Amino acid sequence: MAPKEITITGFTVRDLRWPTSLDNIGTDPMNLAGENSFGYLQYQTDAGLVGTGWSFANGQGNDVLCTAIRSLAPRFVGRTLSSLTANMGQTQRKISSGQIRFMSPERGVLQLATNAVLNAVWDLWAKAEAKPLWRLVADFTPEEVVRAIDFRYLSDVLTPEQALEMLRAQEGTKAERIRLALENKAVPAYNTSAGWLGHSDEKVRELLKSAMSQGFRHFKLKAGLGLEADRKRLGFVREVVGDEGILMVDVNQLWDVDEAIEYMKHLADLKLWFIEEPTSPDDILGHAKIRAALKPYGIGVATGEHINNRVMFKQLLQAEALDAVQLDACRLASVNEILSVLLMSAKFGVPVVPHSGGAGMVELCSHVSTIDFVVVSGKKSILEYTDHLHEAFEAPAAITPDGFHVTPTAPGYSCDVKEAEFGKFECPSGTFWQSEIGQKMLNDPWRGVPGEQTS
Amino acid sequence: MAPKEITITGFTVRDLRWPTSLDNIGTDPMNLAGENSFGYLQYQTDAGLVGTGWSFANGQGNDVLCTAIRSLAPRFVGRTLSSLTANMGQTQRKISSGQIRFMSPERGVLQLATNAVLNAVWDLWAKAEAKPLWRLVADFTPEEVVRAIDFRYLSDVLTPEQALEMLRAQEGTKAERIRLALENKAVPAYNTSAGWLGHSDEKVRELLKSAMSQGFRHFKLKAGLGLEADRKRLGFVREVVGDEGILMVDVNQLWDVDEAIEYMKHLADLKLWFIEEPTSPDDILGHAKIRAALKPYGIGVATGEHINNRVMFKQLLQAEALDAVQLDACRLASVNEILSVLLMSAKFGVPVVPHSGGAGMVELCSHVSTIDFVVVSGKKSILEYTDHLHEAFEAPAAITPDGFHVTPTAPGYSCDVKEAEFGKFECPSGTFWQSEIGQKMLNDPWRGVPGEQTS
Repeated sequence: MAPKEITITGFTVRDLRWPTSLDNIGTDPMNLAGENSFGYLQYQTDAGLVGTGWSFANGQGNDVLCTAIRSLAPRFVGRTLSSLTANMGQTQRKISSGQIRFMSPERGVLQLATNAVLNAVWDLWAKAEAKPLWRLVADFTPEEVVRAIDFRYLSDVLTPEQALEMLRAQEGTKAERIRLALENKAVPAYNTSAGWLGHSDEKVRELLKSAMSQGFRHFKLKAGLGLEADRKRLGFVREVVGDEGILMVDVNQLWDVDEAIEYMKHLADLKLWFIEEPTSPDDILGHAKIRAALKPYGIGVATGEHINNRVMFKQLLQAEALDAVQLDACRLASVNEILSVLLMSAKFGVPVVPHSGGAGMVELCSHVSTIDFVVVSGKKSILEYTDHLHEAFEAPAAITPDGFHVTPTAPGYSCDVKEAEFGKFECPSGTFWQSEIGQKMLNDPWRGVPGEQTS
Repeated sequence: MAPKEITITGFTVRDLRWPTSLDNIGTDPMNLAGENSFGYLQYQTDAGLVGTGWSFANGQGNDVLCTAIRSLAPRFVGRTLSSLTANMGQTQRKISSGQIRFMSPERGVLQLATNAVLNAVWDLWAKAEAKPLWRLVADFTPEEVVRAIDFRYLSDVLTPEQALEMLRAQEGTKAERIRLALENKAVPAYNTSAGWLGHSDEKVRELLKSAMSQGFRHFKLKAGLGLEADRKRLGFVREVVGDEGILMVDVNQLWDVDEAIEYMKHLADLKLWFIEEPTSPDDILGHAKIRAALKPYGIGVATGEHINNRVMFKQLLQAEALDAVQLDACRLASVNEILSVLLMSAKFGVPVVPHSGGAGMVELCSHVSTIDFVVVSGKKSILEYTDHLHEAFEAPAAITPDGFHVTPTAPGYSCDVKEAEFGKFECPSGTFWQSEIGQKMLNDPWRGVPGEQTS
């Protein structure tokens, strides 16, 4: 069914920041205080439908992201939805081109802005078809999936023809996987809410027990406090979760390459599935070296939260640097680029375990992981579940009593934030940010920087 | 001589854009219209001195850069200059840390903003010492150079101790190289002004002849128009410059990896020194593959203009992907990170040929290349000279009649733009941007995008 003609008539961009640092959510060794934030774009249309897209930031600099979205968003005003969706791969390439490309080709803040704009188009498209985003893509033919991807820079690893062949091989069994998705059996959950560095030992123990009673077996914890402190902390976590619990640790880019290898060797007896972000996300060769060195110790390597584009993932896969592809649904250029990374990961046989440790991330990734299972890999992987701020969303993510993500059912890409949140948390006009504590947080340019005075 | 105590009291950030696209300056296959632009920061001090720093953009999105600079710049207000310069490596790490890091660690727009802030500190420091920036660094002890660098993520290739050893080995002959620098014999120039794609054949011929009469032997040209057109264009350039002319071509990330190899093989008879930016700047393994494949054809590979940080350069060197390191003086985190890339390049024996194809770039790079020669590599390389917009600067770059860059003599980092430029070209308030043509350019969100309607 073709969508009826819909024209984009205008847009709004809003700076939304939740003061998550007050609860120590989002703390890690590189950032002692993070405020989950969105550069939040809405496209208005002549059909009454609104297309919503956002990218995630961590407090300071969210205004930079909003400025970038304001720069790109006008490109689609006056355009019909069908003129954009007829070839979404080309639409991606065009939004990534031009003068603005020089500042940061497919990287950094500009890539986040590109994602927000394309997310809004995908959201609008899915709403126009009255389908959740994952189902819109699940109902594509292989040719339609390929047309959504910009294959530039990928052809040495994945051509459109190879992608078609992979997608066609999954077609015969797709209906069965759609059935599983509709029964909430597509995407098993794992838990990280227990692991933020700011939490006390007691709080971590309590959160773990609560998670286990909900059926979780996978747990991810922040590390990097120093070997003694980490061994103590991870040791009691291992005690609480028992031998059958699967533990992962994350140090958020803390180490140099050889330092990561040495440190992790000393944690081998704790039986960790992988070390996440051991070093700079740009260090492809470094990740490959770390993985090779830790393999004899039974420890894998994962990264992706800060990987900006398909070219970096291509190389991480070529270099055999990863045991899990932790793509971030905002860091890449929306569903377009995510599809290319899902395909490459499937080709190399590496599971996709999306990063979803922030507000709204689970909402987006429950679509992404469902698409991976239903359309691309055909295999169940796992998806991080963090339990904060779901109440802020019109179509909140949730998990089942047996530890699966609930497959989204509302039309769209689950991007819409409840209007009431803006009254409190839009920055700087919301009531929280106008309060004394809010003003103090906003006016501290060093907030979250290790080693500096922060208020 | 220690500088007297100077305190930073405030700052201004201005959006400066020259309408260079009107002269077809800055055109390439990925961007059909570029406006050389600065996010321009000035720190005011209680001593009357002003520290100036900027990063380069290409028109649209320069406001994103300015917003990013405004976010970071407050961190140094109220600080004394000596508290920042006592350990510039640590100062770099601190400005790259905190909430803002999450959006784009040491990449993209945030890295450009980091550069602008640190450039302003270096400029202020050199002015306080009444020395041109290159001389400030040339007068450092090896220990002082090492203290200016953040070695995070580098230790698998370069440790502080190894850097010290390299720098000490150059100390004995440094005075002689300083003498050469003072005689304008440190940095040979090469020419790209003839090569922008927007120029007609006649204009290219005329510009080449003029450059040759000024003593230039190296010429770089844009390519990527298609094999037939490129062969025709490069063929007549080869005719004009003769066998002794050294030709380089640049396609600004146009191709996929295997496409680059196939295309360039067909240009082998034109005897090209290197192909610049054959593919995505993020594709380290791709550049290595292209270089290996083209080596038998006598064609080298270069990149760097879009390389964001020391970790990417580290890997390009580890992977033996480069014949020339084309670092960009704004893309990296100022002199701090440039020093680390100079050291790694020297360690791997690859010449540094900085990118300086835009307004103000030659002004900065004449310091950078002088530092490379005097302090780090001890070897003469070459530096791009483009001849537009020098008149806009308080301390303009220039070349000697025998084809060397004039070594800067004015105190500071040659960042200061003449105040009169802002009246015309500050955006959007300047007279040019308020004019009919200026408004039309600003209001075209597709400007420069290949295949789109642009005005």
